[in-house]
Amino acid sequence: MTVSPFDHPFLSGLLADAETARQFSADAEIAAMLAFERALAEAEADAGVIGLEAAAAIAAAITSFRPDMGALGAAVARDGVVVPDLVRQLRGAVGEPHGDKVHFGATSQDVIDTALVLRLKPVVERLDALLADVVARLDVLQTRFGTRPLIGRTRMQAAIPITVSDRVSSWLAPLQRHRARLAAIRPELLVVQFGGAAGTLEKLGDKAAAVRGSLAQRLGLGDAPQWHSQRDRLADFAGLLSLVTGSLGKFGQDVALMAQDGSEIALVGGGGSSAMPHKQNPVAAEVLVTLACFNATQLSGMHHALVHEQERSGAAWTLEWLLLPQMVVAAAASLGQAASLAGQIESIGARQDK
Amino acid sequence: MTVSPFDHPFLSGLLADAETARQFSADAEIAAMLAFERALAEAEADAGVIGLEAAAAIAAAITSFRPDMGALGAAVARDGVVVPDLVRQLRGAVGEPHGDKVHFGATSQDVIDTALVLRLKPVVERLDALLADVVARLDVLQTRFGTRPLIGRTRMQAAIPITVSDRVSSWLAPLQRHRARLAAIRPELLVVQFGGAAGTLEKLGDKAAAVRGSLAQRLGLGDAPQWHSQRDRLADFAGLLSLVTGSLGKFGQDVALMAQDGSEIALVGGGGSSAMPHKQNPVAAEVLVTLACFNATQLSGMHHALVHEQERSGAAWTLEWLLLPQMVVAAAASLGQAASLAGQIESIGARQDK
Amino acid sequence: MTVSPFDHPFLSGLLADAETARQFSADAEIAAMLAFERALAEAEADAGVIGLEAAAAIAAAITSFRPDMGALGAAVARDGVVVPDLVRQLRGAVGEPHGDKVHFGATSQDVIDTALVLRLKPVVERLDALLADVVARLDVLQTRFGTRPLIGRTRMQAAIPITVSDRVSSWLAPLQRHRARLAAIRPELLVVQFGGAAGTLEKLGDKAAAVRGSLAQRLGLGDAPQWHSQRDRLADFAGLLSLVTGSLGKFGQDVALMAQDGSEIALVGGGGSSAMPHKQNPVAAEVLVTLACFNATQLSGMHHALVHEQERSGAAWTLEWLLLPQMVVAAAASLGQAASLAGQIESIGARQDK
Amino acid sequence: MTVSPFDHPFLSGLLADAETARQFSADAEIAAMLAFERALAEAEADAGVIGLEAAAAIAAAITSFRPDMGALGAAVARDGVVVPDLVRQLRGAVGEPHGDKVHFGATSQDVIDTALVLRLKPVVERLDALLADVVARLDVLQTRFGTRPLIGRTRMQAAIPITVSDRVSSWLAPLQRHRARLAAIRPELLVVQFGGAAGTLEKLGDKAAAVRGSLAQRLGLGDAPQWHSQRDRLADFAGLLSLVTGSLGKFGQDVALMAQDGSEIALVGGGGSSAMPHKQNPVAAEVLVTLACFNATQLSGMHHALVHEQERSGAAWTLEWLLLPQMVVAAAASLGQAASLAGQIESIGARQDK
Repeated sequence: MTVSPFDHPFLSGLLADAETARQFSADAEIAAMLAFERALAEAEADAGVIGLEAAAAIAAAITSFRPDMGALGAAVARDGVVVPDLVRQLRGAVGEPHGDKVHFGATSQDVIDTALVLRLKPVVERLDALLADVVARLDVLQTRFGTRPLIGRTRMQAAIPITVSDRVSSWLAPLQRHRARLAAIRPELLVVQFGGAAGTLEKLGDKAAAVRGSLAQRLGLGDAPQWHSQRDRLADFAGLLSLVTGSLGKFGQDVALMAQDGSEIALVGGGGSSAMPHKQNPVAAEVLVTLACFNATQLSGMHHALVHEQERSGAAWTLEWLLLPQMVVAAAASLGQAASLAGQIESIGARQDK
Repeated sequence: MTVSPFDHPFLSGLLADAETARQFSADAEIAAMLAFERALAEAEADAGVIGLEAAAAIAAAITSFRPDMGALGAAVARDGVVVPDLVRQLRGAVGEPHGDKVHFGATSQDVIDTALVLRLKPVVERLDALLADVVARLDVLQTRFGTRPLIGRTRMQAAIPITVSDRVSSWLAPLQRHRARLAAIRPELLVVQFGGAAGTLEKLGDKAAAVRGSLAQRLGLGDAPQWHSQRDRLADFAGLLSLVTGSLGKFGQDVALMAQDGSEIALVGGGGSSAMPHKQNPVAAEVLVTLACFNATQLSGMHHALVHEQERSGAAWTLEWLLLPQMVVAAAASLGQAASLAGQIESIGARQDK
Repeated sequence: MTVSPFDHPFLSGLLADAETARQFSADAEIAAMLAFERALAEAEADAGVIGLEAAAAIAAAITSFRPDMGALGAAVARDGVVVPDLVRQLRGAVGEPHGDKVHFGATSQDVIDTALVLRLKPVVERLDALLADVVARLDVLQTRFGTRPLIGRTRMQAAIPITVSDRVSSWLAPLQRHRARLAAIRPELLVVQFGGAAGTLEKLGDKAAAVRGSLAQRLGLGDAPQWHSQRDRLADFAGLLSLVTGSLGKFGQDVALMAQDGSEIALVGGGGSSAMPHKQNPVAAEVLVTLACFNATQLSGMHHALVHEQERSGAAWTLEWLLLPQMVVAAAASLGQAASLAGQIESIGARQDK
Repeated sequence: MTVSPFDHPFLSGLLADAETARQFSADAEIAAMLAFERALAEAEADAGVIGLEAAAAIAAAITSFRPDMGALGAAVARDGVVVPDLVRQLRGAVGEPHGDKVHFGATSQDVIDTALVLRLKPVVERLDALLADVVARLDVLQTRFGTRPLIGRTRMQAAIPITVSDRVSSWLAPLQRHRARLAAIRPELLVVQFGGAAGTLEKLGDKAAAVRGSLAQRLGLGDAPQWHSQRDRLADFAGLLSLVTGSLGKFGQDVALMAQDGSEIALVGGGGSSAMPHKQNPVAAEVLVTLACFNATQLSGMHHALVHEQERSGAAWTLEWLLLPQMVVAAAASLGQAASLAGQIESIGARQDK
């Protein structure tokens, strides 16, 4: 079933980034959740909260654990989250006597939020690599065509002459700022979530901080106090995703406008039409505009989700699941399309010998 | 791959309506597109635009046609739409000498928009049935508990006594208005899309209107001039979807507030917690709030898509594909959850013998 | 102070419609609120709820009443609404013995919502007149230039020839649908709000319906049960405002695109530049796009406001005050700019003798 | 005229921050624009682009200059921006022979964007001071009541005991992160805008960089290459404004929920009702939720405005004027209301001797 183009057998080629989308598959999510449970058991064994044999039993069970997806689905419809049933199944897999040490002191939100962050870690790497790639391709355009003249356009009207470099800089400079923003946000974003039932880690007593620190370290995440109801890190990251697609939307719009009559730009590729054989549509350019509008739209919902009441809001939290993965995939797809588009530019600007 | 919970193996049980989501599967979309091409061929044969044998050959080919999904996916990434390649494949299936009569005079947007409308037709039926079901269940609550007292609450504070009927009416009355709105919008929404390359049906000459009328009739849709760049019908429908989820969001929020201390409402079911065995979370109520916020967020994008330039905007049009199916499934899911929630209410209001 | 361009001494000329904006001045709002209080007293006297002398005293006091704006402002900061202090002041103006009959059985929301609807009544008239005006001007373009050829453009690329009439129809037809939508929504929207403290008109006993009916009639509004927490009528109207600005945004975008090289359109007027004397910017066209994006953005908030908990939500209700007046003025401004723009079109399409 | 509550004689007390709103008055905007023109003339004299007497004449004229507001308003309706006419008037005030040295090499966008940034500078200071104030007040609550027990609540249900400190921390910690974000964004945001007609400062030749640097320094802003079509700095700042209101929205929502039965919190003040004398409505708490939803809504529009085509987009740029000032005032108002609300909390949590 494919309600969203990001998961669509044929639309995803246009609108998704397969590698990034894979991070949001159910399998990837479950794997990340199991990684949390395993690291938690190990961290708790480190701190003497549970025994070493318990931790070993849990790790072993996780290694061969295959969840009953049907049961998970039924449980989510009832519980609103998948973790209670996943933990129940995992406890069954661990069996006696250590089953009850699974997920000790943790709550669903610890698992789900940490599992999200674990998958955002490679996503952030990939986004940075994609940004660097687009920057590099735009640099190539600068080098090849930068000194060529172009008609500057303001308010949709011809203004005065500029150079190709002036125009390309307006595409490139924001991407460099986004790389800097991504680097700055990384330590804020990639932190563990661990707070227990209502954020107080009440079952771990004076070992809470040590367990959390060890858990974070084992997962390769930063340590931070729980942020169950403090969603600003995710909303801030969503904002950055939309800054990226927005800047690339300008790149796409500019190319589509230049491609109107082909005098200032020559593109290879270009989409065909079912009705007009002569058409070479600047599809990648238009998709960049679409994805910019898409993320600008979704971002609002992520900010509404900041009003996350008390210790846990089912309503606000669930809204994030509906929005953030799509924003992430949209950003990665946008970067991929931008790289393609930059590569499709055979020529830009007027030839200087004209 | 499941970037969106609507397509998720375990989250969809919470957040989707399977029957409605099926309308947006790739298979359902392709089936609808093929229905268009078949009806077009038959309508064109009716009008003498193509021969009866051509129409018959096309119909026969469609009956057994299985598209090469991989090729479609690759083509979309290049063309931005699936139709050029679908038509190419279909022409190949029809073969000589009639292959070139496939899709005669039509364009991709005719196929995709009509295919959407064809699937919205049963969706509208289902939404109305779901609305009627929720209304009926709320009516039952009225009958059973309506005369019971309740504390009216304004600005989150106890105000003066009201009755359960007063509160339930505020949930029910909007739904009746939405049914009326749905009935009113139906003839506007469920119309054929047929305009050809740039909306002028230039290949059909003076037979254009007759072909379009026959096409509409064969598809069970209303006839209307092409609306390639006039997206108000879809944006208006999106608005109605959000009115529905919004009204149900109030129902959910009210139940969640009443369920805080359980004195005014008793719910069966309720979700469990991985950390607190005593918890009975009002999951359905919270999901209604989530889906209300979700559709309120998406609606903005559907309205931005009204700025659809010239005869066809790839950017604005593609944005609709990213938003509308999700809004539809969210509305159906919301209605389903509302029906569940109404069914979970064992008791509401204070017992009158207290 | 002019935080919003709609109230700005120099930006409002570009972005506002003075006549519509006047409906949202504090003076107009207070006048409408006083009209409610007067009609309420008279309706209550009709039904024998208060005495005829009381009603007469209240009417007389209202006639000469000048509110202490400073006191109102201070009160709003404390109460969240202006009505408690307005009523207090009015009671003081009526004096003994009839002062306590002011606002009998009513609540702040009755006054504020009805006062809004009273002002939306002439707004709806004006929007319809403005729509008719734009339609008429586009009709003139049809008549003058409709048969001229134009290059149809799809996906920002030249497609096939169309006529000016084809393009103008895409601007005009939606506006006719919006007029129909406006006519259909009118009876739903222009209804009285009267429910008392928590929506039950508890102080009026078996005279509640009669008083409400008389109140509605005296105010020239439709009668309807209270809709304190049922905000779908307003959200639906907000959607229509955004459909209007969206359709006009397409008109603006199309003109701006045509005006890029001036071969397909000639505009008189056009904005100057501080830096480039040759510039003739298609300012009206661009403003139409801005206002379309503006209303598409605001609409989301009006839909979030549907989640209006219990009998009155201060949070959701106040959000409407921040959004709806601006959407209304944006729609009126957009229609005015569209009329101007249509009037600026000296010529459109290629001359047929070329 | 007061279409927006931020400019409303009585609503602004509830929803605005007067000091911040003043920054967006027409007078403040014009003063900032004149500051730009003055500093430009002086910077150009520094670099020998214009003569010292010209700069002195311009400075003197600006000192006594009173713009004709009516003419400005009429001009904006035609030009889309106020600067061409402001410059024309200023040139007239400077007179011969130096009038034509006013605004030399600059464009409207340089003036308007720089004038915005000049006013954002004190705004950023004020926001930081307001954040510090709210943090301090929440710290006081921590000190006074932090050890008291509270019922932790998850998914709107009682969970397990927590302390007041746990709850207050969830309000306070994000604000500290916002202060850090504000400090980090400051140097990116508070930079001069100077690019000339199409961003190339073509009239200044090899003196362009020196003039821009001197201009920035004279205005107390950072130096940066022009960002006419690169709107990420403003969109990023808008995101931060919404993070602030979002976090404060959670604070407000939590207080409103606690205030439902008054057992966990005691508030002084509270708004009255026109219908129910016993009411003490948590108005400030609700307003925080409203302002959170408001900014979350507006933010989407600021991100759509990132798709700013070519060297200047009238459509996208004008959208920012409609949104950003309101977001700024909403953030300041929210901080003020949060400080008020924190001050209204007489007691929070259960007394420990119970």
